[in-house]
Amino acid sequence: MLSFESDYITGAHPKVLEALIKTNYEPLPGYGNDKYSARAKQKIKAACEAPDAEVFFVAGGTQTNRVVIGSVLRDFEGVIAAETGHIALHEAGAIEATGHKVITLPHQNGKIDAAALEAKIKAFYADDSYQHMVFPGMVYISHPTEYGTLYSKEELSAISSVCRAYNIPLFMDGARLGYGLCSYETDLTLPEIADLCDIFYIGGTKMGALCGEAIVFSKGNAPAHFFTMIKQHGALTAKGRLLSVQFDALFEDGLYYEIGKHAIDMAEKLKTIFAEKGYEFFMQSPTNQQFVILESAKLQKLKEKVAFSIWEPYGESHTVVRFATAWSTTDEDLAALKAIL
Amino acid sequence: MLSFESDYITGAHPKVLEALIKTNYEPLPGYGNDKYSARAKQKIKAACEAPDAEVFFVAGGTQTNRVVIGSVLRDFEGVIAAETGHIALHEAGAIEATGHKVITLPHQNGKIDAAALEAKIKAFYADDSYQHMVFPGMVYISHPTEYGTLYSKEELSAISSVCRAYNIPLFMDGARLGYGLCSYETDLTLPEIADLCDIFYIGGTKMGALCGEAIVFSKGNAPAHFFTMIKQHGALTAKGRLLSVQFDALFEDGLYYEIGKHAIDMAEKLKTIFAEKGYEFFMQSPTNQQFVILESAKLQKLKEKVAFSIWEPYGESHTVVRFATAWSTTDEDLAALKAIL
Amino acid sequence: MLSFESDYITGAHPKVLEALIKTNYEPLPGYGNDKYSARAKQKIKAACEAPDAEVFFVAGGTQTNRVVIGSVLRDFEGVIAAETGHIALHEAGAIEATGHKVITLPHQNGKIDAAALEAKIKAFYADDSYQHMVFPGMVYISHPTEYGTLYSKEELSAISSVCRAYNIPLFMDGARLGYGLCSYETDLTLPEIADLCDIFYIGGTKMGALCGEAIVFSKGNAPAHFFTMIKQHGALTAKGRLLSVQFDALFEDGLYYEIGKHAIDMAEKLKTIFAEKGYEFFMQSPTNQQFVILESAKLQKLKEKVAFSIWEPYGESHTVVRFATAWSTTDEDLAALKAIL
Amino acid sequence: MLSFESDYITGAHPKVLEALIKTNYEPLPGYGNDKYSARAKQKIKAACEAPDAEVFFVAGGTQTNRVVIGSVLRDFEGVIAAETGHIALHEAGAIEATGHKVITLPHQNGKIDAAALEAKIKAFYADDSYQHMVFPGMVYISHPTEYGTLYSKEELSAISSVCRAYNIPLFMDGARLGYGLCSYETDLTLPEIADLCDIFYIGGTKMGALCGEAIVFSKGNAPAHFFTMIKQHGALTAKGRLLSVQFDALFEDGLYYEIGKHAIDMAEKLKTIFAEKGYEFFMQSPTNQQFVILESAKLQKLKEKVAFSIWEPYGESHTVVRFATAWSTTDEDLAALKAIL
Repeated sequence: MLSFESDYITGAHPKVLEALIKTNYEPLPGYGNDKYSARAKQKIKAACEAPDAEVFFVAGGTQTNRVVIGSVLRDFEGVIAAETGHIALHEAGAIEATGHKVITLPHQNGKIDAAALEAKIKAFYADDSYQHMVFPGMVYISHPTEYGTLYSKEELSAISSVCRAYNIPLFMDGARLGYGLCSYETDLTLPEIADLCDIFYIGGTKMGALCGEAIVFSKGNAPAHFFTMIKQHGALTAKGRLLSVQFDALFEDGLYYEIGKHAIDMAEKLKTIFAEKGYEFFMQSPTNQQFVILESAKLQKLKEKVAFSIWEPYGESHTVVRFATAWSTTDEDLAALKAIL
Repeated sequence: MLSFESDYITGAHPKVLEALIKTNYEPLPGYGNDKYSARAKQKIKAACEAPDAEVFFVAGGTQTNRVVIGSVLRDFEGVIAAETGHIALHEAGAIEATGHKVITLPHQNGKIDAAALEAKIKAFYADDSYQHMVFPGMVYISHPTEYGTLYSKEELSAISSVCRAYNIPLFMDGARLGYGLCSYETDLTLPEIADLCDIFYIGGTKMGALCGEAIVFSKGNAPAHFFTMIKQHGALTAKGRLLSVQFDALFEDGLYYEIGKHAIDMAEKLKTIFAEKGYEFFMQSPTNQQFVILESAKLQKLKEKVAFSIWEPYGESHTVVRFATAWSTTDEDLAALKAIL
Repeated sequence: MLSFESDYITGAHPKVLEALIKTNYEPLPGYGNDKYSARAKQKIKAACEAPDAEVFFVAGGTQTNRVVIGSVLRDFEGVIAAETGHIALHEAGAIEATGHKVITLPHQNGKIDAAALEAKIKAFYADDSYQHMVFPGMVYISHPTEYGTLYSKEELSAISSVCRAYNIPLFMDGARLGYGLCSYETDLTLPEIADLCDIFYIGGTKMGALCGEAIVFSKGNAPAHFFTMIKQHGALTAKGRLLSVQFDALFEDGLYYEIGKHAIDMAEKLKTIFAEKGYEFFMQSPTNQQFVILESAKLQKLKEKVAFSIWEPYGESHTVVRFATAWSTTDEDLAALKAIL
Repeated sequence: MLSFESDYITGAHPKVLEALIKTNYEPLPGYGNDKYSARAKQKIKAACEAPDAEVFFVAGGTQTNRVVIGSVLRDFEGVIAAETGHIALHEAGAIEATGHKVITLPHQNGKIDAAALEAKIKAFYADDSYQHMVFPGMVYISHPTEYGTLYSKEELSAISSVCRAYNIPLFMDGARLGYGLCSYETDLTLPEIADLCDIFYIGGTKMGALCGEAIVFSKGNAPAHFFTMIKQHGALTAKGRLLSVQFDALFEDGLYYEIGKHAIDMAEKLKTIFAEKGYEFFMQSPTNQQFVILESAKLQKLKEKVAFSIWEPYGESHTVVRFATAWSTTDEDLAALKAIL
């Protein structure tokens, strides 16, 4: 069965798997105190050109979001996000379960706008009743967004400036960061992201690892006892090696970029196939997720031959669906898809 | 200083105060086990024509909202409210602090619409990812709303029907319920509200009490050990008499309605004064809160002579302000206001 | 019916009630922004000889404990308390509901010991796994304790020293503080308590108010936006005057001490009556709560004539019960009790 | 470097690793909807002889405890555990972070006693103030315990009977369940555990998996929308295959028992070595964790050659340390240890 359902349909990239196999029998201390952890963190700091950064590994994205947001926010604060943000919609209330409100902003293809953000913050402090309200305590963005779109350097700089003007940390959800970094349409590098954001994470699960995300506090700004907070959230991996060995491999010899570039190239070919077949796109996505408009009546039939994700209704008779590429997408997969379409 | 700032600027209605004075020296058990509590609950159930109702007294509105919503919702559920709802905006994240999301709907003058509500719930269950999302577990409305508006019987019935169709409890915030019941423009009675809502509260603080709200579970549907939940939220009053004696007085000889009617009559006169003086209203409110548009430049000067509340900006140069009447508003106050205007 | 059930069986002390009556018709702003609030806070700071103190009023004790502890603790911290502490046993999990653990210490008649406290904290930091554990972030004591006992100046100083050595704030629950201050066996004054504790509250509900507790951050050390946290906990009183007017009266002309002294004197007489009648005490209490050992078989009969509280079983056939005095206890009450015994 | 530090020092058992390698390139749906998940669940239900059981996979133990306990308890309930229980001491307040109290009982070598449990529950309901207290809503035990000890069938049956008499679910933390099942001193089988407990988990991480625990609701008694609760806790694994493939392997051809038996046999040999060398044991442990008393002064030197865990001080001059065996412990490791000792 052909599958373009997501970028987490296959296991680990061969080089990541190889690293796990190679180190499997080595006795290593638990909870991230192993030597691969130290080495992987060093590599990530180097890749970010952020020598003061603090890096932590946890297993998944929602876990990352809840432990970071829950630990950084003070009790009277909430986090600002696009109304389509993953934390706002698709994490089953994980942020609220930590006691904090997600304050939403309108989005444009998944992105928030610096001017709207500043207006929101200004309106808050201008409100006579602001002491009865949730304080804006963090800004959360995804890059790529839920819709595969990317912030430009100018856009991210503007958001970062607003955050700094109001002393609000900026947190980037980089579950698919590698696809953003390798897009043909981006002008943002990893060091620039590390510079403009206060906190971000480098996604592993959707970038060729079995699991794992690397949380980066760019300026040594991790909250006090963040290790203990990871434990409290149930996010501390006993066999920490599972995460560190994978990230050590992902940041060896540019593998992370290799994976990203492969998926982007496959996505470009995918776009061409859909375009040639006359399909319309819901939006122009420069990354590995492509949103195509299909006739709802034909979904079922297509699903018998190829797996993809249902996104949202589009008018009465059509549906937006998502096709995603990944490290494991092959030219044969694309040829087979073309034949089916 | 003249004050139309809110409906909680003065102490207790004389008859409420009298009841407190009269019972002050009686030894009574704590935590709501006093005889006035039993009597007040009985009166409320009679006024609601809801013999199976369960009634609880707590001191304030936000407290009521958080203990009711926090206790009724299951962990995977959130509460649906208008984006202008008190719980959505002005309770400092009290609901989220109990671990639950406030899911917002657009509003029309503070009200939500049954059709939009049903569409929201339907869209939730139709979403392929709904298991990754917060379940709709309660509907919260205010009556009167934040803008002083009222649901008609038809509107409330429609919302109630949607709730019942999806087995979602309907909770009405009645901080100012008495003003709604006594409005000249309402067609809803207390028994009808008790019938259409699963849970509601009868506001005391803004209706002539020093403090106190009466939570009504209309159909004997209080969650298990709700008393203990009140304690856990810090909402259990040791001298429960403070609440029960006041409600006993409010529901003696129709005092609650007397207070409501007085404030409504004063509000009607207030409206006439503003209209005669050529002021514009932000909206037509049928209750005791009136929203008037003032020139921002003149606010400060007016504030020196009369207290009112700043609501929100209106264009570049104007501001919406609120004038509220209460049990203690007099014809002299109105005459003085007229003179100032 | 005679009642020694608790110190909150009657309403307000006449002078407190008088103050409420006198100010009832004055229009005053809400949420603690009234002039009586400013004045009461000034009086309290003067009584504490703590000019930098920050004072906040809330309605009840559990509310106070949860908003103070919940706001001061960081997410990775818990609060240390005696295993008999109110927060550990009788607040229905209110502290845990804010996400924090109550770490218990053994007690001696309700008190904790500085040496045991220090040993606990030292053991924590000496533990190889301390990063997997809840950090000690606050020390909570009651004065008087649950058993009516008092810390001596030496004992409190020792606890305070341990707290400061480890940079852990010391919080005193003073629900019955006035009875402690007026005991014939105390050597601690209010200014000394303000000096030795970082946070404490001056109980009103059990000291002649209808409701109300005054939270004191002795050294201007209130956490950021504590007002907003009060709101979030549902503990903000709309008619803030209800609290401020009462505290203004309690701290006028030494009324707080007058109330305390009266109850202590009544308790001393009560002790004598029980002793003369041959009853045994569960412990020697120097304050207004007296714990007497009664034959369980005779409880029911006695309860028909006088109300008191069941405390705990004492062996197979006896029960510890509590008799409490208050501002409203009279010599007639005591004579009647004597006759019954 | 020789390591007996824990049972999670090495990667995956070769057969588990092989299964991951073999399935690595297969496209599979995420979030546990893969075919291996269905198959692994079927195998586990068969091994438990519990056809109505519901099985869920999550990555780690603390995660399991917080999602199970947090989801099953109602807001007014807490969980009863030994004072040495993992949730009581070593999960950084994860349970309290979900809003629930851990109610502790004394322990005997890590175990609780049915009689003490019943006394605790009875005392709760007999307490006049029980409505002001946290209700006992679950009983948590570990098997093996923190000290490697095991419940006998008689002991577990007695605890189970108490739980059923009071309608309180019994939850067993089986992080090291396999070592318990394979101990030479146990009389409890997996089906018996499934029968006597309402909920338990079968540990993977400490039993030869890279990560993963299998939660079993023995009688189809999973709480509503438990999948969503897993997501909310950040415990939903996107590449669910990582968990399901490993459990599919662990429950193929008795591998789980094979791993358990190997570690137990190694532990028996380890015991003999220590005994022969004249060391004393802190307690008799029938499973893979052995607690030995060492001179504190010699710890550092020994640590240079072999890794082990510091447990707790033993008097002034000695220390309890833990040596653990696992699937990867070899006779060579033991011989090397013997030489060092």
